[in-house]
Amino acid sequence: MPDSDITRLAVWDKLKKKAEEFEKPHKHLKHLIDEKDRLKRFSKSLPGVFLDYSRQRVDGEVMGYLFELAKSRGVLDRFRQMTDGKKVNGTENRAALHTAARRFPPETVYIDDRDAVKELHTVREQFQRFSRQVHDGEIRGSTGKTFRDVVVIGIGGSYLGTEFVSCALEPFADRRMHLYFLANVDIDDFGTIAERIDPERTLWIVISKSYTTTETLANANQAYAFMEEKGLEPSRHFVTVTSRGSPGDDPESHIIRSFHMFDYIGGRYSVSSAVGGVPLSLYLGYDRFERFLKGAREMDIHAENAAPEKNLPLIGALIGIWNNNFLHYSNLGIIPYSSPLRKLPAHIQQLYMESNGKSVDENGNELPVSSGVIVFGEPGTNAQHSFFQLAHQGRPFPVDFIGVLKPSYDQYKNRSKGVTNHQELWANLISQPMALAQGKEDENPAKRFEGNRPSTTLVLDDLSAESVGRLLSYYEARTVLEAFVWGINPFDQFGVELGKKLASDVRKTMVSYGEEKKDTGALHGPIVSFYLDRLLST
Amino acid sequence: MPDSDITRLAVWDKLKKKAEEFEKPHKHLKHLIDEKDRLKRFSKSLPGVFLDYSRQRVDGEVMGYLFELAKSRGVLDRFRQMTDGKKVNGTENRAALHTAARRFPPETVYIDDRDAVKELHTVREQFQRFSRQVHDGEIRGSTGKTFRDVVVIGIGGSYLGTEFVSCALEPFADRRMHLYFLANVDIDDFGTIAERIDPERTLWIVISKSYTTTETLANANQAYAFMEEKGLEPSRHFVTVTSRGSPGDDPESHIIRSFHMFDYIGGRYSVSSAVGGVPLSLYLGYDRFERFLKGAREMDIHAENAAPEKNLPLIGALIGIWNNNFLHYSNLGIIPYSSPLRKLPAHIQQLYMESNGKSVDENGNELPVSSGVIVFGEPGTNAQHSFFQLAHQGRPFPVDFIGVLKPSYDQYKNRSKGVTNHQELWANLISQPMALAQGKEDENPAKRFEGNRPSTTLVLDDLSAESVGRLLSYYEARTVLEAFVWGINPFDQFGVELGKKLASDVRKTMVSYGEEKKDTGALHGPIVSFYLDRLLST
Repeated sequence: MPDSDITRLAVWDKLKKKAEEFEKPHKHLKHLIDEKDRLKRFSKSLPGVFLDYSRQRVDGEVMGYLFELAKSRGVLDRFRQMTDGKKVNGTENRAALHTAARRFPPETVYIDDRDAVKELHTVREQFQRFSRQVHDGEIRGSTGKTFRDVVVIGIGGSYLGTEFVSCALEPFADRRMHLYFLANVDIDDFGTIAERIDPERTLWIVISKSYTTTETLANANQAYAFMEEKGLEPSRHFVTVTSRGSPGDDPESHIIRSFHMFDYIGGRYSVSSAVGGVPLSLYLGYDRFERFLKGAREMDIHAENAAPEKNLPLIGALIGIWNNNFLHYSNLGIIPYSSPLRKLPAHIQQLYMESNGKSVDENGNELPVSSGVIVFGEPGTNAQHSFFQLAHQGRPFPVDFIGVLKPSYDQYKNRSKGVTNHQELWANLISQPMALAQGKEDENPAKRFEGNRPSTTLVLDDLSAESVGRLLSYYEARTVLEAFVWGINPFDQFGVELGKKLASDVRKTMVSYGEEKKDTGALHGPIVSFYLDRLLST
Repeated sequence: MPDSDITRLAVWDKLKKKAEEFEKPHKHLKHLIDEKDRLKRFSKSLPGVFLDYSRQRVDGEVMGYLFELAKSRGVLDRFRQMTDGKKVNGTENRAALHTAARRFPPETVYIDDRDAVKELHTVREQFQRFSRQVHDGEIRGSTGKTFRDVVVIGIGGSYLGTEFVSCALEPFADRRMHLYFLANVDIDDFGTIAERIDPERTLWIVISKSYTTTETLANANQAYAFMEEKGLEPSRHFVTVTSRGSPGDDPESHIIRSFHMFDYIGGRYSVSSAVGGVPLSLYLGYDRFERFLKGAREMDIHAENAAPEKNLPLIGALIGIWNNNFLHYSNLGIIPYSSPLRKLPAHIQQLYMESNGKSVDENGNELPVSSGVIVFGEPGTNAQHSFFQLAHQGRPFPVDFIGVLKPSYDQYKNRSKGVTNHQELWANLISQPMALAQGKEDENPAKRFEGNRPSTTLVLDDLSAESVGRLLSYYEARTVLEAFVWGINPFDQFGVELGKKLASDVRKTMVSYGEEKKDTGALHGPIVSFYLDRLLST
């Protein structure tokens, strides 16, 4: 890993000078997009995927320096170390092998003496068989009814990726299964789901690597009690996805069975493993899940092997660095012009912000620059009628626009104003990046648009399982490549520990408060005490 | 409206000096929260609502200057002009009377010679009767079946507020109606909803003030065609919410009936009008909708009349200004520790960013400071397992935490680690603001927390209809009060026009492309031409 202060690199200075140049009027995007061959020079194609960064505030020189930066930081080498099973998660002394979950024997990836591909494949075969048995009615609930309602109990990385993929592929969910996500410890979440499911036909999937996640266990316990109250045998209605030997790895007694996950795949990168595989195989069928893996694998191979100048995730990562550290944008909007991709922003929000929201590098040195930006987004055109007022005339932020050439429901062809709804959607997707880039003069200052607002457009051919896999892998690779430029560890998350520790202390006080009605002010100070009193006297 | 440059006010300079002081170690939040009576001094109560800003980076002097700023900008006077029906939306020469939608005769609010309270009440009586007739089966679909599936066709302000309220009150949705929102012109959105509804039992509510919104009309046309294809009589399945005399105001021929909306209530402020009232009365019952209005009215009265130092929305607005223009935070996280409030962030995102994402003041002068920030959020504790890594150790941003003392589903009482799930949720809600404020030293730099990250905690007694009304009105008032400090118009949205215009041009080219297979490059340049070719050859 690079040890030097990134800002002392000569190329960093060159980029800073370029950023100053980009403040000048002749570098306004309205001029850049008129350059000859602009699109050709600043776009790249792969089968099924097209990346257009012609509306980013870059020129050939900027891109050249950015590739130089990537080279000097050895980011593609680091990426290959990652996919080869090296322990790139240094603070936790672990490998980071989400890419191995997209590989199949006879390929191998060894971590010490374990073959991760084989381990992951064994589990895959288990949930392939399991999902078939559930679909065929060989495995049923305790009253003999087939399963129909699948509830995933898991939080953060144990559900966001799966939720994204399940929404994206919902039009192909033909297994007659309903999929629910019980993430929050909020009892109102449980109550809402409890009203919708048929307990006799419900399969609960409890997902936690350590099987110590407080929210997940609280929900699992509540679900277990609920099933007992309904007179059902919970052991016939629960599976777990967890580490070998964890408290939840208990296939003999209290549950149907466990599927293993491994310490070399972190939560936010885990949708390709059993974390996504078990629920998605039940919801979509195992074959479709495997096609999703194959799409992701294609993009993984591309990220590993493509030359920097043709490498889509690397280009995305470097533009991220440029926009953040040189042009000083603090946000990234993710706007899919596709309702099935409506959960992509929330997934990338976690993936990116938990990976790259760091303040120290891998060597423990304070970073001299900001790393992660704040990711947010909603589908377009909805976003146009929500926060795009600010995007056009307020605080500027870069946008990733995502388009899908072929919709999933193509049987509806009604035309309004001469175009289908899908064409109308695209008329907007085509226009927004141009409007943001070009701007517009007007005599009325309220109707003036300064433009020069950068965006990328990523186009998928369709929303097949393969496409969704490519999209997922693109963002995963882009996220870790950005981290490798800064030299930070995108695989740990020590920043969540302090809040957990305080919550544990407060919980203990709640328990003793309940028993002894003690004044709690002494332990946590008057503010916490106030809230404890308010809550516990309600 | 104030004409002066806000940054030339003496008090602006005083606040700038205070902001410098707040960079110093002794003003770190970990010290501020230990001050005697900190919570008492920096919190305010109203019936059902508690606002705690003790973890904001403020002191008595800062708040004093902020109130002075508010006074010098006349913001509460402006607010009262708004509620009195003055044409505070200057660029469009309109009043802004969402607060009148929460008032009942014999109260009156005149705009020129029209009484807005009476107009709004008349429509309210119409949808009160209509919802009763639907619930009682007096109004049915064309095959004689009662309605069960209600689909709202509307985008932006025509659905985000209603979606928020319907989710918040979902536990009380006891009218056996299913509510869907068809916002996006994406045909996959239509396809997904079409699969779920029973057309014979479906009532479509088309909401558009002008009845010219492209997406909404495209969806309405598609829905109309769909109903005809199913052999149903669409006129018996559609209602509209629109302006008097608009193309959709046509109760005699093609639809069941129209409910009127008025030009003095903008989309993002319209959930209290027929825009929210028609679907919410069907979904929740009219009485519950009226209770929601009464809660909002309580907060409106408070915002109009409370002294600045006790005025919750004004305090929220001023802290927004302080965090944005003086401490230079560019984002606001909205984190409700309550799953039923899961759509609050998306609603406030629109309400706030579309209102305050402006670059000129009401007089057309370029603003000397940034106005709106970027609003985003997810429910807690989910957010803790997603982007809170960055909140604690990355780029800081202020947070509005929202807690609810009594959950809606209180029949589930299972305990884990000695506490109920609701208490676990609260243990986290209590702890996160403290962790963000205090931070923590550690020998390991990766486990160090700098703290000093500001937040507000807003506590509601419960999720009754009244509570949800108070919460909505709090954010509406806070949003416009911030705008009045800057002297911007929070009621227009000219920033969305350029994109619409370009989309209209592109659409025309699509139509002629289809007919004449013309090369399109000449009209819109090579980038747009490329996308047109890609799409239309797919």
